Amino acid sequence: MDNQNRGATWPTWLPLRDDLRDQVPYGAPQLEVSTRLNTNENPFGPSKTLVKDLESAISEIGARLNRYPDRDAVELRRALAQYLNQLSDTRFSEVNIWSANGSNEVIQSIFLAFGGSGRSAVGFEPSYSMHHNIARVTGTSWITVNRVGDFVIDVESARSTIAAKKSSLVFLTTPNNPTGTITSINDIRTLGRICAEVNALLVVDEAYQEFSQESSAITLVDEFPNIIVCRTMSKAFAFAGARVGYLVANPAVIEAMLLVRLPYHLSSATQALALVALSYSRELLANVAHLRRERMRIKKELERIGVETLTSGANFFLFQTDDPKSLWKALLAHDVLVRDVGLPQYLRVTVGSPEENDRFIAALSKALGSSATG
Amino acid sequence: MDNQNRGATWPTWLPLRDDLRDQVPYGAPQLEVSTRLNTNENPFGPSKTLVKDLESAISEIGARLNRYPDRDAVELRRALAQYLNQLSDTRFSEVNIWSANGSNEVIQSIFLAFGGSGRSAVGFEPSYSMHHNIARVTGTSWITVNRVGDFVIDVESARSTIAAKKSSLVFLTTPNNPTGTITSINDIRTLGRICAEVNALLVVDEAYQEFSQESSAITLVDEFPNIIVCRTMSKAFAFAGARVGYLVANPAVIEAMLLVRLPYHLSSATQALALVALSYSRELLANVAHLRRERMRIKKELERIGVETLTSGANFFLFQTDDPKSLWKALLAHDVLVRDVGLPQYLRVTVGSPEENDRFIAALSKALGSSATG
Repeated sequence: MDNQNRGATWPTWLPLRDDLRDQVPYGAPQLEVSTRLNTNENPFGPSKTLVKDLESAISEIGARLNRYPDRDAVELRRALAQYLNQLSDTRFSEVNIWSANGSNEVIQSIFLAFGGSGRSAVGFEPSYSMHHNIARVTGTSWITVNRVGDFVIDVESARSTIAAKKSSLVFLTTPNNPTGTITSINDIRTLGRICAEVNALLVVDEAYQEFSQESSAITLVDEFPNIIVCRTMSKAFAFAGARVGYLVANPAVIEAMLLVRLPYHLSSATQALALVALSYSRELLANVAHLRRERMRIKKELERIGVETLTSGANFFLFQTDDPKSLWKALLAHDVLVRDVGLPQYLRVTVGSPEENDRFIAALSKALGSSATG
Repeated sequence: MDNQNRGATWPTWLPLRDDLRDQVPYGAPQLEVSTRLNTNENPFGPSKTLVKDLESAISEIGARLNRYPDRDAVELRRALAQYLNQLSDTRFSEVNIWSANGSNEVIQSIFLAFGGSGRSAVGFEPSYSMHHNIARVTGTSWITVNRVGDFVIDVESARSTIAAKKSSLVFLTTPNNPTGTITSINDIRTLGRICAEVNALLVVDEAYQEFSQESSAITLVDEFPNIIVCRTMSKAFAFAGARVGYLVANPAVIEAMLLVRLPYHLSSATQALALVALSYSRELLANVAHLRRERMRIKKELERIGVETLTSGANFFLFQTDDPKSLWKALLAHDVLVRDVGLPQYLRVTVGSPEENDRFIAALSKALGSSATG
């Protein structure tokens, strides 16, 4: 599909909403390259034994696929609670968990329940652009608070915006995409308090949490009923193709999700496959540790060839260049795909397998040697 | 999950939208009974060879589940087009098809692109209540035109409402759920013309189309760019657990879907499993013919015991009773679950396997014999 902006060229018979006419579909270019480091995928695919178990799960449910799935996905939500409890020494159960087809659908449900026409949401940008995108699609006003310095949040400026705008939703991504920036658990606590004063929900998007070593905001959910934490199995669990996102929150938030969710939104296959992957969490988290070490290694190599990088708590990081567009093209010419996230001085690269990372470092060296960019 | 109405008891810190506070989650009771004829599931589960092929499909994609799915699900959309072309002698390709997690998600995307605040949608009720439900969640006003007589559409009254209300969307379900009523292709053509005059889209929900013998509204899509036809693999394909819905429309409608869809909304597993099921369409459609014959048989048996039924083009039908609530309970006492759809003189029953249907007929005979209802 072409990501073209049709602008005024939509046919007159089509009653497309006016505020969508200038939009283009979200998404990075999907190009065929040997080294794809542009969408923060985990390079380690499911192991042979895990795939075998995924197969068995489908074999087990296959003959009943004529029946609707468990509408409330209770077993999966219970397993997600157990996974989190092991990680963070919390005591969640299924009443604290909601799950959907990727964290995008979780975020959309949050907007449908608590946003919409006449309401607004605050985000700290640059950040994950789907927050803004889903706000637009659901008719929620979007208010940007700019990150400062190395893309950190100025809590005092956040305080004054949140107090002034009376927004119902505040989005905070940590580790932040695309910058990798970690917001400390203390700052999240302060933001939670600020939001509580104006009855706003603080939505902490922790898609990349397992790659950082900061405490998770899920440890604040008991104390702050207005904190919602979104997570995903796409990154640490290397399960992007299976589309499983979830949130952790007070049970009243989960009850609100039930009012806006599409019935039977999560297929029997998705529920069964996710349960299998969760049973492999030890193996999958070992890969996360491996990726953290690779992140350190690449950053050192880049410094060695004179490329500055930003501190990151995720499976990606920003590296500096004076000319992102030219360098992006130069890397592509070496069959390496990174992400131009629209920042004037940076490109974003995903931490891949050791071999992919070596190819990236070599391509970057060559590109810089030949073009003297960066 | 309890389907309770919390009304004013939502916590004060939760900024739930005012228009959702009185709602209850959508969904039929999920009860454990031997004969479940309440959600229009197809009783014939995937065959052993089909399950084997589903397994192989997962085995093939398993090791790549760390990667995101094809964002545009092109191969699946192409296969859906081919399936329809075989059925209706049309010439669709992937540019005419959009697919999502069940037809509910397809319908939600239609509302997000063409509805929303300040817009309205018309529906002919009683009908599939998710149309109204999704209208509410997306902030679209909902306008009801009552069906008349045996739940047919009065095209002239439809004309005056559509002209007066300037709605952007008109929903027509055929065969209609829960009544089974078929709207003729000629009436759909007339409605398409009426909608075109006010730049409205006519959304024809054909979830049960394969069970009827009327032409599909997809044969009108070339002539009427403002007709969108929604379909599903849940019913004829006996694939409710896999959650695959789709729509057929002019390519400009598909481009609009791309603006509101969540990126990577359809998992690699869903895409792979649906492709396998589509390759079994001949086998699965044979089951559809079987269910049509069963529908005739049960209706005759019911007439024999003095129970009136309504004509239906779907895998379910309405049967008359003076006291739906008591009869629903009496059938449940005989371990048979049917659906109380809120109509004062009817209950709805799904056509099940021959054995399930026999159990339903026996239970109904006993219930009527003992309670003298009906």
